[in-house]
Amino acid sequence: MKRTLGVCYYPEHWPEAQWAEDAARMADLGLTWVRIGEFAWSRIEPVPGKFEWNWLDRAIETLGKAGLQVVLGTPTATPPRWMLDRHPDMLAVDAQGRPRGFGSRRHYCFSHRGYRKDCARIVTALAERYGRNPYVAAWQTDNEYGCHDTVLSYSDAALHAFRDWLAQRYQSTEALNRAWGNVFWSMEYATFDEIGLPNLTVTEANPAHTMAFRRFASDEVASFNRLQTEIIRKHSAAPIAHNYMGRITEFDHFATGADLDIASWDAYPLGFLSDRLEVTPEHKRRFVRQGDPDFQAFHHDLYRAVGRGRWWIMEQQPGPVNWAPWNADPLPGMARLWAWEAFAHGAEAVCYFRWRQAPFAQEQMHAGLLRPDSVPAQAYAEAAQVVEELLAMPEVDTARADVALVFDYASAWAWQTQPQGRDFDYFRLAFAFYRGLRRLGLNIDILPPDAAQLDAYKVVLAPGIATLSEPLLAALARYKGAALIGPRSNSKTVEFATPVPLPPNLPGLDATVARVESLPPDVPVPLDRGGNFLHWREKLDTTGSVLESCTDGWPAIVGSGGLRYLAGWPDDAALDRILTDLCTAQGLTVDPLPEGLRRRDSSTHRFWFNYNAVPVDRADFMIPAAGVHWEKL
Amino acid sequence: MKRTLGVCYYPEHWPEAQWAEDAARMADLGLTWVRIGEFAWSRIEPVPGKFEWNWLDRAIETLGKAGLQVVLGTPTATPPRWMLDRHPDMLAVDAQGRPRGFGSRRHYCFSHRGYRKDCARIVTALAERYGRNPYVAAWQTDNEYGCHDTVLSYSDAALHAFRDWLAQRYQSTEALNRAWGNVFWSMEYATFDEIGLPNLTVTEANPAHTMAFRRFASDEVASFNRLQTEIIRKHSAAPIAHNYMGRITEFDHFATGADLDIASWDAYPLGFLSDRLEVTPEHKRRFVRQGDPDFQAFHHDLYRAVGRGRWWIMEQQPGPVNWAPWNADPLPGMARLWAWEAFAHGAEAVCYFRWRQAPFAQEQMHAGLLRPDSVPAQAYAEAAQVVEELLAMPEVDTARADVALVFDYASAWAWQTQPQGRDFDYFRLAFAFYRGLRRLGLNIDILPPDAAQLDAYKVVLAPGIATLSEPLLAALARYKGAALIGPRSNSKTVEFATPVPLPPNLPGLDATVARVESLPPDVPVPLDRGGNFLHWREKLDTTGSVLESCTDGWPAIVGSGGLRYLAGWPDDAALDRILTDLCTAQGLTVDPLPEGLRRRDSSTHRFWFNYNAVPVDRADFMIPAAGVHWEKL
Amino acid sequence: MKRTLGVCYYPEHWPEAQWAEDAARMADLGLTWVRIGEFAWSRIEPVPGKFEWNWLDRAIETLGKAGLQVVLGTPTATPPRWMLDRHPDMLAVDAQGRPRGFGSRRHYCFSHRGYRKDCARIVTALAERYGRNPYVAAWQTDNEYGCHDTVLSYSDAALHAFRDWLAQRYQSTEALNRAWGNVFWSMEYATFDEIGLPNLTVTEANPAHTMAFRRFASDEVASFNRLQTEIIRKHSAAPIAHNYMGRITEFDHFATGADLDIASWDAYPLGFLSDRLEVTPEHKRRFVRQGDPDFQAFHHDLYRAVGRGRWWIMEQQPGPVNWAPWNADPLPGMARLWAWEAFAHGAEAVCYFRWRQAPFAQEQMHAGLLRPDSVPAQAYAEAAQVVEELLAMPEVDTARADVALVFDYASAWAWQTQPQGRDFDYFRLAFAFYRGLRRLGLNIDILPPDAAQLDAYKVVLAPGIATLSEPLLAALARYKGAALIGPRSNSKTVEFATPVPLPPNLPGLDATVARVESLPPDVPVPLDRGGNFLHWREKLDTTGSVLESCTDGWPAIVGSGGLRYLAGWPDDAALDRILTDLCTAQGLTVDPLPEGLRRRDSSTHRFWFNYNAVPVDRADFMIPAAGVHWEKL
Ligand SMILES: [Zn+2]
Ligand SMILES: [Zn+2]
Ligand SMILES: [Zn+2]
Repeated sequence: MKRTLGVCYYPEHWPEAQWAEDAARMADLGLTWVRIGEFAWSRIEPVPGKFEWNWLDRAIETLGKAGLQVVLGTPTATPPRWMLDRHPDMLAVDAQGRPRGFGSRRHYCFSHRGYRKDCARIVTALAERYGRNPYVAAWQTDNEYGCHDTVLSYSDAALHAFRDWLAQRYQSTEALNRAWGNVFWSMEYATFDEIGLPNLTVTEANPAHTMAFRRFASDEVASFNRLQTEIIRKHSAAPIAHNYMGRITEFDHFATGADLDIASWDAYPLGFLSDRLEVTPEHKRRFVRQGDPDFQAFHHDLYRAVGRGRWWIMEQQPGPVNWAPWNADPLPGMARLWAWEAFAHGAEAVCYFRWRQAPFAQEQMHAGLLRPDSVPAQAYAEAAQVVEELLAMPEVDTARADVALVFDYASAWAWQTQPQGRDFDYFRLAFAFYRGLRRLGLNIDILPPDAAQLDAYKVVLAPGIATLSEPLLAALARYKGAALIGPRSNSKTVEFATPVPLPPNLPGLDATVARVESLPPDVPVPLDRGGNFLHWREKLDTTGSVLESCTDGWPAIVGSGGLRYLAGWPDDAALDRILTDLCTAQGLTVDPLPEGLRRRDSSTHRFWFNYNAVPVDRADFMIPAAGVHWEKL
Repeated sequence: MKRTLGVCYYPEHWPEAQWAEDAARMADLGLTWVRIGEFAWSRIEPVPGKFEWNWLDRAIETLGKAGLQVVLGTPTATPPRWMLDRHPDMLAVDAQGRPRGFGSRRHYCFSHRGYRKDCARIVTALAERYGRNPYVAAWQTDNEYGCHDTVLSYSDAALHAFRDWLAQRYQSTEALNRAWGNVFWSMEYATFDEIGLPNLTVTEANPAHTMAFRRFASDEVASFNRLQTEIIRKHSAAPIAHNYMGRITEFDHFATGADLDIASWDAYPLGFLSDRLEVTPEHKRRFVRQGDPDFQAFHHDLYRAVGRGRWWIMEQQPGPVNWAPWNADPLPGMARLWAWEAFAHGAEAVCYFRWRQAPFAQEQMHAGLLRPDSVPAQAYAEAAQVVEELLAMPEVDTARADVALVFDYASAWAWQTQPQGRDFDYFRLAFAFYRGLRRLGLNIDILPPDAAQLDAYKVVLAPGIATLSEPLLAALARYKGAALIGPRSNSKTVEFATPVPLPPNLPGLDATVARVESLPPDVPVPLDRGGNFLHWREKLDTTGSVLESCTDGWPAIVGSGGLRYLAGWPDDAALDRILTDLCTAQGLTVDPLPEGLRRRDSSTHRFWFNYNAVPVDRADFMIPAAGVHWEKL
Repeated sequence: MKRTLGVCYYPEHWPEAQWAEDAARMADLGLTWVRIGEFAWSRIEPVPGKFEWNWLDRAIETLGKAGLQVVLGTPTATPPRWMLDRHPDMLAVDAQGRPRGFGSRRHYCFSHRGYRKDCARIVTALAERYGRNPYVAAWQTDNEYGCHDTVLSYSDAALHAFRDWLAQRYQSTEALNRAWGNVFWSMEYATFDEIGLPNLTVTEANPAHTMAFRRFASDEVASFNRLQTEIIRKHSAAPIAHNYMGRITEFDHFATGADLDIASWDAYPLGFLSDRLEVTPEHKRRFVRQGDPDFQAFHHDLYRAVGRGRWWIMEQQPGPVNWAPWNADPLPGMARLWAWEAFAHGAEAVCYFRWRQAPFAQEQMHAGLLRPDSVPAQAYAEAAQVVEELLAMPEVDTARADVALVFDYASAWAWQTQPQGRDFDYFRLAFAFYRGLRRLGLNIDILPPDAAQLDAYKVVLAPGIATLSEPLLAALARYKGAALIGPRSNSKTVEFATPVPLPPNLPGLDATVARVESLPPDVPVPLDRGGNFLHWREKLDTTGSVLESCTDGWPAIVGSGGLRYLAGWPDDAALDRILTDLCTAQGLTVDPLPEGLRRRDSSTHRFWFNYNAVPVDRADFMIPAAGVHWEKL
């Protein structure tokens, strides 16, 4: 595949007279892709049933004729105001019981059958009209599923769909009562119609109830998306993508991704650092204009897995955005660095969001490649530089990783349902392990929770996986490399019960979690080889080898053959040692990197990324602040 | 009375085949009591009006035949799902106006007359069936009134009951308007039907309105409970208890307790330290696996008063729990220490919660004496040790206390209604005084606010009592010992007005609170003899003796004879000095204890408890970490 | 005009027998004014349509005959309970959709037409009865518009009035869609009836939508107030005031003030320091019993502008209040200092709130000049001292200010609608500049945003004005002094879009804001001449003179002639230098004052105010703690 650049564009925002010039400048800049259409429903169908195709026909033609390839979005994230007259109950309802009204976007409940029908109608109309259009080279379904906390809806539509889902899953309330343990506190149901949504209960609902609702809600996203992909495929051979948003774990991206050809995500490094990372204030200060050094890479590797190898950045931050608590200006160079880091991880395309900053409405403070007055903004020249550089390295590939990390959305739901300690968050745990590997200079693959093949890897990590799947357990049993499982892995059944025999119940490892403790962040548990467990630890009964212990004698790591179980949440110092030991024992070379410097290999090159605001000197080369360096392997 | 141990058990959670073995192991361990039934309504009455007694008959018989005595709970804290079809409006409503739905427990409004009828029906059925059962040796009403913030309900049922209560209390709205001062801001009512609940007002409601609602809500708990005790007594001679929860002040436990034979409480030292104590982070760290050294003792002394001498622990934490922000593992020895501390304060029984950890539903992370796989957990051996030790000291008694602290639930409501300073909390104030006395090694009695006899005590404390009752004022007038009254005591009438003459208006003490100030926690007011007032102080006009002053000249303590008024909230240093002076002047010997070491006397023994994670050396004896020591007096 | 003192009094709270003595004591103390009536609706009209005038006639006569002049309030802030039966939907609704119920005060929606009619009815009745009463010397409309967050209502009444307002403003939805940019996210409307209120949207509403709602809500306050003033003027020649509350920016006080003769505000220095100032904990500690040294002065200067020269303090804190998070006792002397500071800024009258502390209802902990038992409280003697001192300086005037600060309510709405950085608050920004000028010992005028005449001033500041008005732009173009504009000034159109050409687009200054960044408070941007930008900075493209720069090279101040644009939010160190440079270059003398010492000139005297708790020594004179000093100019 080719490495390419693109941009997001909204012809409906600008006078038609400006389109041709915009298209020419895009082409001139060297862009390949232009994404359009995903918020334009009110212009495509201003009145119910009355389509206005002409403007869109001309827009696509203008862009296409300029040499650009169009990614056409379905506009289902922004139903027009008239849709609410057709379906007054289509709005999602928040956990407090309040309908989430019209006036911004994503104002729909995934479970509303009437709205789904109208989605099918507009997608059919779009696919019929543009499915064979020579300029439409890819599709995007909807926009950022789950953004603005929109996966979970407590509406009547969701309630009825949930009851149907439960009836399908359990067949009888007797089976459901048994599976959930509803005898506890007399929560037994006689009919499926008695079952409610797990919000607004007096104290926490049965976690099995909540967890079932989380699985249901994730399934609803997948089926909503599948409705669209099935229609598009009938009319078009172009690949279909969805643009996921960073750190959205409310639905299973692997499940939704199974119906797509390409995974893509929207990369806003400064926004994410500001609003969705548990890091120290010092870390936020240090990287305020660069973004976190590992957050993007994690998502690159995640979406490479979700896309089964094919992935893009559909929206790339080009300058300050509008939506984070604070919105700093990226350091000069970052708009280039972020693009190259994506390419180093195997991205086929990086599309900047957006072409020209809009002077109106919600995102008027969101930078584009152009200012509102059409003057090039900072990122314009950086995009041009990337275009230049791509000439020397046009081909995408990703180097084989020796280390794999299993990532499981259901575990995020599990530990939100029952954190047991206030700060126990699955993404945070998994990301801590990922970051630990990155600090050691390793290439990493992310694996889905039902991965059945581990043989390509020397080391596999599976922290915090609530339920180890059958395929993964079987793969682990066969596995010749080193696997580090835990903490908290395999500690729940799929019905959210504690399994008996007690966890982790791993093949070939005699170890039992006799009890666990969660701890406030200021109560570290020291390890005898240095560093600490934080947040969480477990007391193991074991006859296996105790490889490390806490200073009070509780086993910290036990192992048998290549299989190791980790009985707590290590701090960075402990994690560095544990991962170094694990990898070097498998013959891997680790390269502990200075803060803010990171690397990734393609099969032909080693790429270096300097997230620091100062240069880094590496003896054989120097990388400037916000710089990228690569060398042939 | 005998000192005994027991356990909470849920036969409905386990296969019937396991009951006999469980019962045998309980008996073998030396347990006396087994509490059952309090959440089993859906199994006792799976369909409205259709009772299933057989399983419960067999469970009681199995346990009884093994030698155990059954405490039978009424299941009214967990009405089954079908109850909502009978009474759709029975749910409590929160202060934001949202019904608090089915799906956990305590989903009922105390004021709903229809639900009360169904409670009477199930309690009657239970009492008729088991009132003379030889194995049923005690009763428990409902479970943890007020847990999950369930005393205050803003439902229609509550509204109508409140209006009736007001009509009974005031007889006319004219009288009510006058009593509340409704002329202020034109809040006058013409009929009782115009009066609403004091939530969702634009700014704070009239505090007299709020306070009346708090008194009403407390009365509703008492009458709800009385409904059950009156039925049980008709059919059974066994004593009746309720299991109160720690630091629940939303209803008057003395009033509810008047209808019970035994007070009991549910002691979760680590959970309480984590989620309901205003202490420093350092203190929380130090006692993270032991619990606060005074919190349990306070409740022991409180419930000895509520139970008029007879009290139990109905649920004793045996290991990590599931519900606090963080849930640490108790230090080995604590499950024994906690039991012995209860016995030292006069407990007749300590029941561990629960026999076997449930692998399902809300409390699956709550430890038991057994793990989910029936292997003994940490506390099992500690319970066995207590059983052994009880053989040497089978008899319960409590040593006479020389010091008494008045505790008044209505004052908690008063200062929540009108804190005047954000951090003015009644429990916190009363507990600070209690803790001060404990630090000095004293035995303490807690007295109800209408205590009419003080002569048994050398020292009486009454901080923060909003309204001193007639009996207490009369007792103080007669009292020969030393009484320390204030801060803020007697500063409100029962109708929540400022009395004129101004407070404290104490018999024989010429002192007037000319004005008060509340202060942020970082603005201490130094006292001339050391230490500070924090949070609160008062300016006194007085012709009495000024015993201490603030460094800026405001009187800090004034006195006349044995009566002293304290004009602020002392910090620990000031409190230690003030209490030492007060007690030694009355001929009491104080023994300032090192941090984490505490003591309590029975009439025959002095017990020492080491809450520290390290040993304490006391010259004549050494107490290990988490250790208990006793010596004959 | 005369400088006078007054007091707020509630005859309906006290037995009629006490009125004459109260009136005599007021007169004896030397008070001129007594404000009454503003919460007495339930006593004036206890039953709908049935007026009870007799008591009020007697109260006014008793007060008037004692020599006092009455300020009569309209009681519309406290409609009686029966009003809700007439208009069940008159309640305001909060942003969460909950009606804000009866039981305190301000329980009405400004947009409810039925309630407005009843307001007109009661005001007409009052004005007819007392419009010519010789003792009624002034009027007050309602009470503290906007207090308790009551300007914004999300009720049906507000919704319908908003749609009408939009229809008037835009005439067609096509025009509205264009003005707001509703094509973004398909938010276009076909009819005005489709438009909702901008709350409870999935993510933020279109800022143009929110901003229109804010303008509408402000207009509603003005028309509600105008309804009353028009009625009163028909019947009375006495001047009309309203008592504004501190730091209420939800409606445009200039617009409401245009219908009034006198602006007045309610000055609670300790309450405001405790609950509505972004200052360091150290600052709050230092001034805990004195109040902020600049907050009152800012409001004095603001309301002198709102009242077009005529202004009062209608409620002056006399001792501890009841409503702040913490309520300290003022240092002795502060009740005098606060009054004199008001007079130094041109107040005609200072009325203490209230005569006697009420022993009942919401404000029973709010001090008065008398205690509840009628004994003089601390402030009584201080008021007496002010009366004495006024004899020597009876005449009010205000010295010419050389420096002016533009203050614009719409900018407060704009930056709340779209802060872009979490801590960007307009009042905070404007107040920082005001405080900077005060620290330099300058006299300041505040100007409305449509000020058309600047020639009286040597220096004009206009930070953060979202849209510079036509008159102000014209005045700036003509202006010969030094004007400092920015940061963020003129960056929005009136329809809340980004203007093209880009801001600031100032006459005669070639400077363009190429982009902006908001920054967390711990990321300062150092300036090359010292100090930092905090929270916010802008990157300017300019051919003008760069007068200061950030150390990374971004221009910090650019200028051309007298016009300077400031490209960030300066910290105190930077602001002191910038303002000193600006003022001294215009020939003004600055006098950097020690912390807590402030000054203000009348045309004849220089007044000094010591907000410190310790004396300040100024070589030629010494001011005690909480002291006032004045000298002839
Ligand atoms: Zn996006
Ligand atoms: Zn319990
Ligand atoms: Zn007021």
